[in-house]
Amino acid sequence: MGATVCAAVEAETDLELVARIDQDEPLEDLLANGAEVAVDFTTPDVVKDNIRFCLENEIHVVVGTTGFEESDFDEVRKWAEAGPANAFIAPNFALGAVLMMKFAAEAAAFFSNAEIIERHQEKKLDAPSGTAQRTAHLMNEARGRAWDEVTRGRGEEFRGGDESGLRIHSVRVPGSVAHQEVILGNAGETLTIRHDSIDRASFMPGVVLAVKKVASLDGCVVGLEHLLDL
Amino acid sequence: MGATVCAAVEAETDLELVARIDQDEPLEDLLANGAEVAVDFTTPDVVKDNIRFCLENEIHVVVGTTGFEESDFDEVRKWAEAGPANAFIAPNFALGAVLMMKFAAEAAAFFSNAEIIERHQEKKLDAPSGTAQRTAHLMNEARGRAWDEVTRGRGEEFRGGDESGLRIHSVRVPGSVAHQEVILGNAGETLTIRHDSIDRASFMPGVVLAVKKVASLDGCVVGLEHLLDL
Amino acid sequence: MGATVCAAVEAETDLELVARIDQDEPLEDLLANGAEVAVDFTTPDVVKDNIRFCLENEIHVVVGTTGFEESDFDEVRKWAEAGPANAFIAPNFALGAVLMMKFAAEAAAFFSNAEIIERHQEKKLDAPSGTAQRTAHLMNEARGRAWDEVTRGRGEEFRGGDESGLRIHSVRVPGSVAHQEVILGNAGETLTIRHDSIDRASFMPGVVLAVKKVASLDGCVVGLEHLLDL
Amino acid sequence: MGATVCAAVEAETDLELVARIDQDEPLEDLLANGAEVAVDFTTPDVVKDNIRFCLENEIHVVVGTTGFEESDFDEVRKWAEAGPANAFIAPNFALGAVLMMKFAAEAAAFFSNAEIIERHQEKKLDAPSGTAQRTAHLMNEARGRAWDEVTRGRGEEFRGGDESGLRIHSVRVPGSVAHQEVILGNAGETLTIRHDSIDRASFMPGVVLAVKKVASLDGCVVGLEHLLDL
Repeated sequence: MGATVCAAVEAETDLELVARIDQDEPLEDLLANGAEVAVDFTTPDVVKDNIRFCLENEIHVVVGTTGFEESDFDEVRKWAEAGPANAFIAPNFALGAVLMMKFAAEAAAFFSNAEIIERHQEKKLDAPSGTAQRTAHLMNEARGRAWDEVTRGRGEEFRGGDESGLRIHSVRVPGSVAHQEVILGNAGETLTIRHDSIDRASFMPGVVLAVKKVASLDGCVVGLEHLLDL
Repeated sequence: MGATVCAAVEAETDLELVARIDQDEPLEDLLANGAEVAVDFTTPDVVKDNIRFCLENEIHVVVGTTGFEESDFDEVRKWAEAGPANAFIAPNFALGAVLMMKFAAEAAAFFSNAEIIERHQEKKLDAPSGTAQRTAHLMNEARGRAWDEVTRGRGEEFRGGDESGLRIHSVRVPGSVAHQEVILGNAGETLTIRHDSIDRASFMPGVVLAVKKVASLDGCVVGLEHLLDL
Repeated sequence: MGATVCAAVEAETDLELVARIDQDEPLEDLLANGAEVAVDFTTPDVVKDNIRFCLENEIHVVVGTTGFEESDFDEVRKWAEAGPANAFIAPNFALGAVLMMKFAAEAAAFFSNAEIIERHQEKKLDAPSGTAQRTAHLMNEARGRAWDEVTRGRGEEFRGGDESGLRIHSVRVPGSVAHQEVILGNAGETLTIRHDSIDRASFMPGVVLAVKKVASLDGCVVGLEHLLDL
Repeated sequence: MGATVCAAVEAETDLELVARIDQDEPLEDLLANGAEVAVDFTTPDVVKDNIRFCLENEIHVVVGTTGFEESDFDEVRKWAEAGPANAFIAPNFALGAVLMMKFAAEAAAFFSNAEIIERHQEKKLDAPSGTAQRTAHLMNEARGRAWDEVTRGRGEEFRGGDESGLRIHSVRVPGSVAHQEVILGNAGETLTIRHDSIDRASFMPGVVLAVKKVASLDGCVVGLEHLLDL
């Protein structure tokens, strides 16, 4: 992912790539090379330290790493508000994913139940995906009331999540990149909103847009929808 | 479908069922029984005569029959404007179908190509479905510019349609009720919006709503979205 | 379901319907009316008592109730072998479901990972579904070796199952009848086998076939595939 | 695709890459470099000349180019039988695609109707895809009788095909690699068999297998299933 982002940044005439930092290389290289914006696609265990380093050193940061809890966003918000640099975090940089989240939220009030199925390759570190968690969060917020009761059946420890009664199923099989479907149901009908990313190419327009806009944001902003005129 | 509609009307405390007309029975029964609103789920070959009869006799009409061309809507509009009775026509009375059309139209400007696949049972008389045609119409209108060029390949006479470059595929297999998916694509990603009606129950809330609201409309209105606060 | 089965039995010229037993009526009615075969579509909490009653009273039994564990099948097998009457149990009576299970089992050896997603209406009592459990069982048996390792992510108590590393996701939304998809993955590709039952009509050919064949079986047989020439 | 194949051949210890031929380079390079097997992923307009050149010059040929009609296969068969070199042609080298075709053929006898939807990127030259045509051919052969009648509706010239009453819908949108679903229907149920290739990586095991086995085949063989123990 890092290499794809570097290539996308280099392809832009009004952006300049000044540093590439691999996992065993020091973040101080950002300062040495005068970086104004850092892009972080790392792992859940190091991403927060990276963000903090950037913000404390007055470097704007664009984050595509997932695995954030609500409390993590709060922490980043505090760091961003404490200084001049901003953070932009998106669980998904694909335009289609942003539209999926928007439509799922708009539909949430009209159906009695909904569930989310997300599918990624078998080595993805976190579950549920950041996109699924954010979708559920936006749907619950837009709905503003509880979902109808559903029989539970036998429970087991399982890959997935439960956001205020909205269930997320996390499927992990090879041959997957980033896929999600939101299924909403009423008596006699279901509405399904599905997004399939099959190539990192689908994320690059969003990443480049965020790099260009992060300096003009206010503190910490979460979600690509805030950078688009939808 | 007629029986299901009659049962739904009878279940409403503020509606009264005054006549049921089967295919070999005279429309004059509507007049004899003092009908204020007629509901038409018939076939493409008789629906326009039925609508004309109702409007000329000052009976509001709610129409679920499909197979309309743009020129047919124009004719109905003329009849409705010529007298006090209104016509309400919906290619699909399911709430989920209305949301599918709305979201597909909203997404149309953000993708370079799209195609529609609709699936119904093997005896459906018309192809493409009224819902698919209306979806394509709304998408083209919202997009306001041509879709990207697509290689044609070998052409054949086929079940389906082409609405200004937006292709509709009409699948007919048993085990289907009313299913449609809209697939929108950009480099590396697709967004799919899908609606599945598996039971006529899903149409009844929309039919009942239309029966209650048709008298307060203005002339001829097409599409359930105009009766909802979306 | 009971009413649909009764109608299907009555429609057969070589079968006679001698008794209908609702949930608050005594099973002794079967004996009083000389039933040779009983059909049970009840609930997981009473089905085993019903089967035992039938077999002890030398009445063959065809069972469509789900929620069985492997140990339950063992018990029924013992009862069936202790007397002249046979039991036939199928987690799913739809022909398409049987083919889905067969194909999923055949494909299991060729992919590194697989997961099952089953979807039913929100009031279904058991989870995972009997069909999903049986599919997983047949796939594991046909594969004969472990599935590849998959990162677990955060675990939660969840609706679903885990059959020797094969995960089952149980989705519960209205607008569903009986739907299942098996997703098998290798590097760069997925194979999906999906069955959708949208009407009880799809189960009747299988139920009628079982009623006609149960007397000629040997003890307890599980799965419609054993009654078909596949 | 050529580059991916070359890399895959080079990665095999028992294969040697002796020539790469781009579209403006002469086929004679194969002879000059002593090639024993040629792999052709070109275009429908040149593939047959390429195959003929190879077979006449006693070089085995493995072909992944699509767009073949039944009469083209016959011609290649004649050329292969006229000399010592063999031809192996596969409309699809992905294992999952081969299983999809096998299962669709097995299921064909059990359903009253079926249709095929194939989806590829918007620049694919031929429609319907070679995989879809071969699937339809195998399904018709296995079924051995006509499909049930289906209402036609309005016909139009369209992207797709009709193989003895089995309809193929060809969808072309960006964000696609190679996707196909076969939908089979009976009263109340559908069975769907779907294959998604999202990366050329999925074709390489099949191509390498064909390169290793083509010398031991007999004349012209069509379909990867003949090289596998299914």
